[in-house]
Amino acid sequence: MTLDTNFAHDCVEMIHGGGGRAMRRLIDDLFLQAFDNPLLRAGDDQACFQVAPGRMVMTTDSHVISPLFFPGGDIGALAVHGTVNDVCMSGATPLYLSAAFILEEGFPLRDLRRIVLSMAAAAREAGVAIVTGDTKVVERGKGDGVFITTTGVGRLPDQVHCSAARVAAGDKILVNGFLGDHGVAILSQRENLTFEANLRSDSQSLLDLVATMVAVAPDLHCMRDPTRGGLAATLNEISQQANVGMRLHEKAIPVRQEVRAACEFLGLDPLYVANEGKLVAFCPPERADALLQAMRSHPKGRDAAIIGDVIEDERRLVRLRTGFGGERVVDWRSGDPLPRIC
Amino acid sequence: MTLDTNFAHDCVEMIHGGGGRAMRRLIDDLFLQAFDNPLLRAGDDQACFQVAPGRMVMTTDSHVISPLFFPGGDIGALAVHGTVNDVCMSGATPLYLSAAFILEEGFPLRDLRRIVLSMAAAAREAGVAIVTGDTKVVERGKGDGVFITTTGVGRLPDQVHCSAARVAAGDKILVNGFLGDHGVAILSQRENLTFEANLRSDSQSLLDLVATMVAVAPDLHCMRDPTRGGLAATLNEISQQANVGMRLHEKAIPVRQEVRAACEFLGLDPLYVANEGKLVAFCPPERADALLQAMRSHPKGRDAAIIGDVIEDERRLVRLRTGFGGERVVDWRSGDPLPRIC
Repeated sequence: MTLDTNFAHDCVEMIHGGGGRAMRRLIDDLFLQAFDNPLLRAGDDQACFQVAPGRMVMTTDSHVISPLFFPGGDIGALAVHGTVNDVCMSGATPLYLSAAFILEEGFPLRDLRRIVLSMAAAAREAGVAIVTGDTKVVERGKGDGVFITTTGVGRLPDQVHCSAARVAAGDKILVNGFLGDHGVAILSQRENLTFEANLRSDSQSLLDLVATMVAVAPDLHCMRDPTRGGLAATLNEISQQANVGMRLHEKAIPVRQEVRAACEFLGLDPLYVANEGKLVAFCPPERADALLQAMRSHPKGRDAAIIGDVIEDERRLVRLRTGFGGERVVDWRSGDPLPRIC
Repeated sequence: MTLDTNFAHDCVEMIHGGGGRAMRRLIDDLFLQAFDNPLLRAGDDQACFQVAPGRMVMTTDSHVISPLFFPGGDIGALAVHGTVNDVCMSGATPLYLSAAFILEEGFPLRDLRRIVLSMAAAAREAGVAIVTGDTKVVERGKGDGVFITTTGVGRLPDQVHCSAARVAAGDKILVNGFLGDHGVAILSQRENLTFEANLRSDSQSLLDLVATMVAVAPDLHCMRDPTRGGLAATLNEISQQANVGMRLHEKAIPVRQEVRAACEFLGLDPLYVANEGKLVAFCPPERADALLQAMRSHPKGRDAAIIGDVIEDERRLVRLRTGFGGERVVDWRSGDPLPRIC
């Protein structure tokens, strides 16, 4: 840190986005120090790296979560986990991230530093480098503290071909653990609810879990992280893309008792609530047991379960067999009950 | 277009960011139709493409310009040009872009469509595909219409090595045309000034011009687009990185008479005003004339000029020899006089 940027007391000002010396200092004192790596240090407007021949993937997400800090994480870690996971879901290994910040005038530099350090830690843990970035500032009342857009590129192994288009009737549907933790943790923080004080976001990188899964089941058909709109939106989207139906078993879907109780209190359905450290996977039925065992052997898949299977259905419906033996359609709602969840 | 999204009358609502059916429809009806390409059409959360061995570059920029529409462009075209140009400045050929949108509740879908169609046209013209994206919505008063973050990857030819670190004493400094057009056009629109009604932003892709330049001068040392902070910020940044000084000749720097007059009226210095279709290039002195001729032979470099040279200077100052024979230091100001210029 130089004397020029006072993280304890200063706030983001318009000149921090002005392209001049103040912006340069903020970049040098904060972003370069936190994300330090050779590609970033080169200091050009673009990062340059060597690639081997083969397939790469690219994915992007803007993060606008409110509040910025929540039990189990913050917007910084989330911005890394979200994009790392989107790269992973293809079966690829994430290599490099970019990070673009839209800051609101008046946002405390102390909070910005906390967020950036959290991003740096999350990136280190996932083994990805943040190699290029951008900083913009908007006037007070034209933003909301900080928005972070991360873009990731990754390397896809030759033998992996994950895509919604490959999901087929007969496939088993697996999840790696309890659903709804993220959304309920955010909502309880936002609404200042204390009744589930021990609920935390599941925000985490799924990179290592996916590596374990792909090693056991390189013929996995599809993986996707059920973020906005929860499991319900993700399954409906895939059923549309793959032109199939799905049948779920309510009893098999892992939901914590506290999340279930909170959802009942709030009038939410846990199947529609966002996750940030969960994945849903589709695999051929003969591979399902081995995949489940591999997932359960990993700390991030300890509570994994087979929750249903893919069926032929021209109407492409997702149905749920309820605990009481009935059946209902898990519809694709018009919107998430929880805005700005990621 | 389906009947579901009414672009003539509807506005962005929170549910357009909710991960459910409303978001899916907006994506299908607008983004997929406008940006249509096979990678995007695959419909997975990440785009997958084949790469040849060698070097790639990656760069990102958030765009928060105000107003969204201005003489000579709009935020959509700008978001493509800005990132395409950042890729080009390394000497690389842009391949793929991602686009992440942060929309404000209440923003007219009509305007969003206009912006997206403009992005699509700019991408087509530059020969890059927008292959993956994201849409978030924030509440009224927590954003400003639309912010767009684009990230680009490109392919770097083996023989090109452009970097600020390569700039050396003796290098000639070239620009491809008139400086300050973008900033003055934005400001006159913002302040509703009519005295330079025919001033337009220079927002454009520099891809084809750069290809011409690299063909003639593969030993180019560095290129950079003088956007925020203008030529002054860019030259000061490079002089710091390369540990050199620079000497400019005021008479040689191309500035339109109308821009000069507007700057005088507004109390601005054109050297500090942003550009979106200009580049500054550094090359060995023996190559400068050939490079200048090549630039002038191209429509986007018709008004190119050699504006100065790089000198040894431990203080790393950028000096300007004025039209009156004096000399002044072109300081690195603390901030841009024009916020939200890109």
